[in-house]
Amino acid sequence: MSDVRVAGAGLTAFGHSPERTSRDLFAEATIAAFEDADVPRADVDALLYGNFMGELSEHQGHHGPLMAEAAGVQAPATRYESACASSGTAVRDAVMRIRNGEDDVVLVGGAERMTNLGTAGATEALAIAADDLWEVRAGMTFPGAYALMAQAYFDEYGGEHEDLAHVAMKNHENALTNEKAQYQSAIEIEDVLEAPPVSEPLGLYDSCPISDGAAAAVLVSEDYAEEHGLDAPVSISGTGQGGDRMALHDREYLARSPAAREAGAEAYADAGVDAADVDVAEVHDCFTIAEVLALEALDLEPVGEGISAARDGRTTADGETPINLSGGLKAKGHPVGATGVSQIAELADLLAGDHPNSEFVSDATTGVAHNAGGTVASATVHVLEVDR
Amino acid sequence: MSDVRVAGAGLTAFGHSPERTSRDLFAEATIAAFEDADVPRADVDALLYGNFMGELSEHQGHHGPLMAEAAGVQAPATRYESACASSGTAVRDAVMRIRNGEDDVVLVGGAERMTNLGTAGATEALAIAADDLWEVRAGMTFPGAYALMAQAYFDEYGGEHEDLAHVAMKNHENALTNEKAQYQSAIEIEDVLEAPPVSEPLGLYDSCPISDGAAAAVLVSEDYAEEHGLDAPVSISGTGQGGDRMALHDREYLARSPAAREAGAEAYADAGVDAADVDVAEVHDCFTIAEVLALEALDLEPVGEGISAARDGRTTADGETPINLSGGLKAKGHPVGATGVSQIAELADLLAGDHPNSEFVSDATTGVAHNAGGTVASATVHVLEVDR
Repeated sequence: MSDVRVAGAGLTAFGHSPERTSRDLFAEATIAAFEDADVPRADVDALLYGNFMGELSEHQGHHGPLMAEAAGVQAPATRYESACASSGTAVRDAVMRIRNGEDDVVLVGGAERMTNLGTAGATEALAIAADDLWEVRAGMTFPGAYALMAQAYFDEYGGEHEDLAHVAMKNHENALTNEKAQYQSAIEIEDVLEAPPVSEPLGLYDSCPISDGAAAAVLVSEDYAEEHGLDAPVSISGTGQGGDRMALHDREYLARSPAAREAGAEAYADAGVDAADVDVAEVHDCFTIAEVLALEALDLEPVGEGISAARDGRTTADGETPINLSGGLKAKGHPVGATGVSQIAELADLLAGDHPNSEFVSDATTGVAHNAGGTVASATVHVLEVDR
Repeated sequence: MSDVRVAGAGLTAFGHSPERTSRDLFAEATIAAFEDADVPRADVDALLYGNFMGELSEHQGHHGPLMAEAAGVQAPATRYESACASSGTAVRDAVMRIRNGEDDVVLVGGAERMTNLGTAGATEALAIAADDLWEVRAGMTFPGAYALMAQAYFDEYGGEHEDLAHVAMKNHENALTNEKAQYQSAIEIEDVLEAPPVSEPLGLYDSCPISDGAAAAVLVSEDYAEEHGLDAPVSISGTGQGGDRMALHDREYLARSPAAREAGAEAYADAGVDAADVDVAEVHDCFTIAEVLALEALDLEPVGEGISAARDGRTTADGETPINLSGGLKAKGHPVGATGVSQIAELADLLAGDHPNSEFVSDATTGVAHNAGGTVASATVHVLEVDR
């Protein structure tokens, strides 16, 4: 079984660019990725591409061949759709293909164009990640769903909005040095607490923004990296995926994410590590409460204690296990189909010492990327390790 | 590397059932598949599911977990979208996963709800498989695109509408015994030639219908099949995928399908067979001309000669290489996301002797399934072989 290496990655700026098509965004991300990777496009064996709402925002399906064209590669291309975990599932299949010798070089990526729909339109489009018949038609939106999860968490384990505010503040702080981030501005606890409520207890600053953007990464086999003398010290050493019932009302607990727990356990076992080995993580903080649930599902915090992690400094940049040093979805932005691959890109740079925030994890060897779809009905987890 | 076996498969009737949701359809197909396979749902390691237009016809994305629920399986689920080749790409990844020991039992499937959109609405929805910016906005629909391909074929290699009419007549004839087929009625050459034109030279009877339906197959490793004493004589021994430029105007030839040729060559090499070994095939005849192009791309007919294959009886049920004994998309129907898996299901039954039309291929050992997306910008090909 071959080791899988991250040869290079590229991101567009995440943010508000309603006039740019997803093919335009993806072209930019892939230009950066190929330059970073120093791999010729002709060597690409497959493109695995994540996109969530292209049918609604661009009246476009069948993204695979279109995005291969945008990337300038002539290779079979497949589109993966798992809501906000779309490109996480693409990464997972890329890892399997390279390990098993099916492919030597896989371009993974994702893009999403969202802001052209406006905030209300994008919120409505995002809702197709929930159960249309039993949730969406009853009025459920994702801010509402995560607010229910936050309420359930507070009821079961305690905690309050101010704890969540520390998550938002931390992630904004981390994004200050990230030139691709949608928000490069610090916020205070009061900003979060006094922000307009979206769905209580969550307010505007508990929520990630609506974003346009793209991400791409060139993954290669260890053999390919060695043969071509690539500088690719970071490997993807573990992959896992979990699934849960789609609708919140079908679950036993609102304040736990068994799909992420399953994905994490599988990825840890696959990499031969455990949670105690994890030095740094990028987790799917679409809302502040989502980061708390992710920490617990990944065993980075005991159940019921994740709520205090940011407030008590365990997950801040200078904490024991920095979380979302990129700024996370909260501050970096969340162009849905791009998010899973962007986490891999940020984490690889963090571990390789190529990230503005690498100084906080200079001894780190093991990182984790956690990508979730819907109310975590889908989840992928990847373990990255660096040669030191 | 483990051999991949088709343990069982199930289909709904294909046709007009606008009141049924895709989850309802998929549940029915999976009930039949598990019964046929004699595999417990608890053994399923993953669901790989193809769907194309759920966002438009059901305001639903994130199909994976929803369909796992419909199938009654608790396993990570991923949705594949490659236009009309959506579930073909799911089969391909399932084959890779089983071969490589990642999974022992994979449920592959697909469903599509289309008729609730009406014919015009479904035609408009299907158009998202083409390039929205450069084809669809210029007025291109798929009947129009395939009509251009037919015209180009006639110009380059000769042939006329009557040749294509033989393809339609043959496939309707084949469907007479297929109780799941949308059309179980014979047609004559005159019916095709006198049918209302859709986009010349293609008329109503050159076109597959708009269909609702679902398909599911339980694929297992050879080891699993042996351990559990399954009756699973058919293996998927080859897989291939190809890609092409999305828009017709970006291609060198209108009347050839290099993506299908690439997929076919890869699948043949993977299985260790060549075109001369193929005894029977299910090909993607969304329009009559598409069957002709498929035969040539798969090297079942020399370039320029596929046009006469049905007329001259080489591809009829009693011909040398029967094509679309199920009735094909033309007569069986084409619920887009279900089609790729339905081809595997029909072919497995044909080879195993369990199909009403098996009598025509009683000595057959090797079959091919060809699934295409858009104007063949995506294609998957699978080789199936039976122990005799």
